Amino acid sequence: MKLQKTNGDSSKAIYDRAVGVLTGGVSRNTIFRKPHPYYVASANGSYIKDIDGTKRLDFANNMASLIHGHSHPAIVKAVRDQLKKGTAFTMGTEVEVAFAELLTNRSPMFEKIRFMNSGTEAVMTMIKASRAFTGKFKIAKAEGAYHGTYDYAEISQTANPSNWGDIDKPNAVPVVQHTPKGITDDVVIFPFNDVERTIHLLEQNADQIACVLIDPVPHRIGLFPATHEFIEALYNWTRKNNVILAFDEVVSYRVNYSGAQCSYSVKPDLTALGKIIGGGFAIGALAGKSEIMEVLDPRGTFLKHPHSGTFSANPISTTAGRVAMELFDEQAILSLNALAMTARKQIEESIKIADVPVCITGAGSMFKLHFQEKAPNTYREAYQNKETGAIVKELLDYLFFKENIIMINTLACMFSTTLTQNNIDRLSEALLRGLKLVKPKIEQLS
Amino acid sequence: MKLQKTNGDSSKAIYDRAVGVLTGGVSRNTIFRKPHPYYVASANGSYIKDIDGTKRLDFANNMASLIHGHSHPAIVKAVRDQLKKGTAFTMGTEVEVAFAELLTNRSPMFEKIRFMNSGTEAVMTMIKASRAFTGKFKIAKAEGAYHGTYDYAEISQTANPSNWGDIDKPNAVPVVQHTPKGITDDVVIFPFNDVERTIHLLEQNADQIACVLIDPVPHRIGLFPATHEFIEALYNWTRKNNVILAFDEVVSYRVNYSGAQCSYSVKPDLTALGKIIGGGFAIGALAGKSEIMEVLDPRGTFLKHPHSGTFSANPISTTAGRVAMELFDEQAILSLNALAMTARKQIEESIKIADVPVCITGAGSMFKLHFQEKAPNTYREAYQNKETGAIVKELLDYLFFKENIIMINTLACMFSTTLTQNNIDRLSEALLRGLKLVKPKIEQLS
Repeated sequence: MKLQKTNGDSSKAIYDRAVGVLTGGVSRNTIFRKPHPYYVASANGSYIKDIDGTKRLDFANNMASLIHGHSHPAIVKAVRDQLKKGTAFTMGTEVEVAFAELLTNRSPMFEKIRFMNSGTEAVMTMIKASRAFTGKFKIAKAEGAYHGTYDYAEISQTANPSNWGDIDKPNAVPVVQHTPKGITDDVVIFPFNDVERTIHLLEQNADQIACVLIDPVPHRIGLFPATHEFIEALYNWTRKNNVILAFDEVVSYRVNYSGAQCSYSVKPDLTALGKIIGGGFAIGALAGKSEIMEVLDPRGTFLKHPHSGTFSANPISTTAGRVAMELFDEQAILSLNALAMTARKQIEESIKIADVPVCITGAGSMFKLHFQEKAPNTYREAYQNKETGAIVKELLDYLFFKENIIMINTLACMFSTTLTQNNIDRLSEALLRGLKLVKPKIEQLS
Repeated sequence: MKLQKTNGDSSKAIYDRAVGVLTGGVSRNTIFRKPHPYYVASANGSYIKDIDGTKRLDFANNMASLIHGHSHPAIVKAVRDQLKKGTAFTMGTEVEVAFAELLTNRSPMFEKIRFMNSGTEAVMTMIKASRAFTGKFKIAKAEGAYHGTYDYAEISQTANPSNWGDIDKPNAVPVVQHTPKGITDDVVIFPFNDVERTIHLLEQNADQIACVLIDPVPHRIGLFPATHEFIEALYNWTRKNNVILAFDEVVSYRVNYSGAQCSYSVKPDLTALGKIIGGGFAIGALAGKSEIMEVLDPRGTFLKHPHSGTFSANPISTTAGRVAMELFDEQAILSLNALAMTARKQIEESIKIADVPVCITGAGSMFKLHFQEKAPNTYREAYQNKETGAIVKELLDYLFFKENIIMINTLACMFSTTLTQNNIDRLSEALLRGLKLVKPKIEQLS
């Protein structure tokens, strides 16, 4: 049961084996990099050591899913204790109830919750529950927003100038080739943060829309928050039209104690969760109003939305998640968000010193660099063309190989509570050097 | 971080808390039972002790997902070792490659593999990949077959006499209320094991079908294998019509060293996996021909099927899965299947002694009881009406409460390698008593 021995150029050697058995050598495109991905030997706190012996400072935290960095001792201990008692049963466990209590206590809008295995499953269930509750078929979502891999939810996530169409009526652009027309026909695409156009588009489909799906701080759109005006307009419109306001907070839940939603005066009906609430283990959850969640209730005489999942609410993910969320209390969130704000300010200073047309957007413990002078407010403003993408890649490679710093491949950072001021100094200094390096290329961008 | 103390009637007390925060008090309808679910304190091997102190013999193994029972020491040890090194990274790990090598080595048809987080995700990706590869939209699936919660895959899973329609052209019946018409229109339902009708139905949609989705031993249809003639007919038809033959082996992979598919002379193009390959942790996988899997390859100039997943191929699930599958070698499978066959024979003896019109179907390490004299061969033959369901529930409750035996709520057993001859004796004796108890009611069934 020993792993095959590797040595020397070992990430390359592992990848050479990987391409023989995994399509493209990976199971997640996010870990793919040229000439090959790097493989982890071990990780602790904010540091990851790869199998070739290089230790890197991690600002990606597994795509924003590790709020306490790697191998947090309290999580490791709690999971070890549970491991001895079993990992999954055709029966319940107390921890799923205790964890449900914890999450519903944090967020007034989470009257009821149900656990599942991934953010993808959570968003899919949110959409299916919205249809079952409203009796309508269509969903509305923002151009460019990522909501997992359920095909309805991913329409137009990768829309680009060649196919996105008129901003007054954005095309529904499939992500996967040959997505059924039945799916694209049932998805209304609106421009994020554009109140007037969005409401106009929703109005045209008012009697057919089951839910308006929105991530209040959408990473793939450009990692800037939805304006108060925009969320309020969606709220008011959904109230008038018997439509569910469905928040995807799989990423943005970290922003505040009750999720990013607590920053707005109006609240969603349903919320999809995932990422950090699993404490480093696969999880997803759907939470919201009892009246809507009831479609999932097996006690009723007529069950509108039968739903199961072999590993849903398993005691490993719920144990790890419960410990992680207990540690991520109001004080921890305040401190982490303050550290991220300090980092943003220091990086803005680096940008100023490097004198490059670069800006930062973000919220809470997340931020992202854009190669443009003015902060974008819509997907199309933030859209990054191929030339820009090549410079982003160059900067990411510089950081990864020369500075031993890991950022998300969108030039985003998702902080964990294990980061320190020293780590932030290292990041802003590395970015200063990196930005100077790519400066001539950034300036050539139109 | 202590769990709330409970005592006395504690499963009831926990459920009383659960209904306040979880819809219906559960995250999985499979664990729901009246008057309330029972909660696990700890589990080891084939035994689960609930929080009220009762120890039960487990033949459900978390809906067929635990091939080595609970808390297998080798799996616990390997996971503990990995825990210290981290649970998820935005980088690769060697174990995902080693595990991919193990699985592709076992099954000649698994030229390439990709890991994900659940069987639901695996089937969804299999369908999306089939569309991307063939350029066609529709899928064909068997009436009554369960393939996870992606809505295309779940159509007609719960079809019943009031809505299933003519056997010559079964209706596409949604599971969730208000499933879009675009979905039902794109699903062709065929009768399992009925060659003539199935081929006729496929022919009518020949130029629109992307894949024929089939579980070779479908639990929800009735847990009997697809006939050789049926699988061969599907194979031959898919070859002629540029259609992908897509096996769902999430449950049935346990039947043989290369899955249930190794029993047939013809093989699928793609296979969805899950359950036992995670060693007790959330997992899913899609495996199959390189040429088709290529739609997922991020290296290409044009990526037909972008696909990601935050926890896909995480080193906990792949470590546990790898150890579990190494232990589940050809000898282990032979022994386990032989034990299940012994159990079937002993239970048949119990049925004979009890003199009840009951039969058993199954394959490998799985079997299921039916309250009918003659073994069913199709979904409609195996279909269980409400009156039968009530007797099934009575028998399950008798076993659970009086005999301390856990079976799946379909009256199925999914064996694990920790079961012994003594356990089998206990099962067949308990069933003898249970069948005698419900005998008058079974005999009243029409």
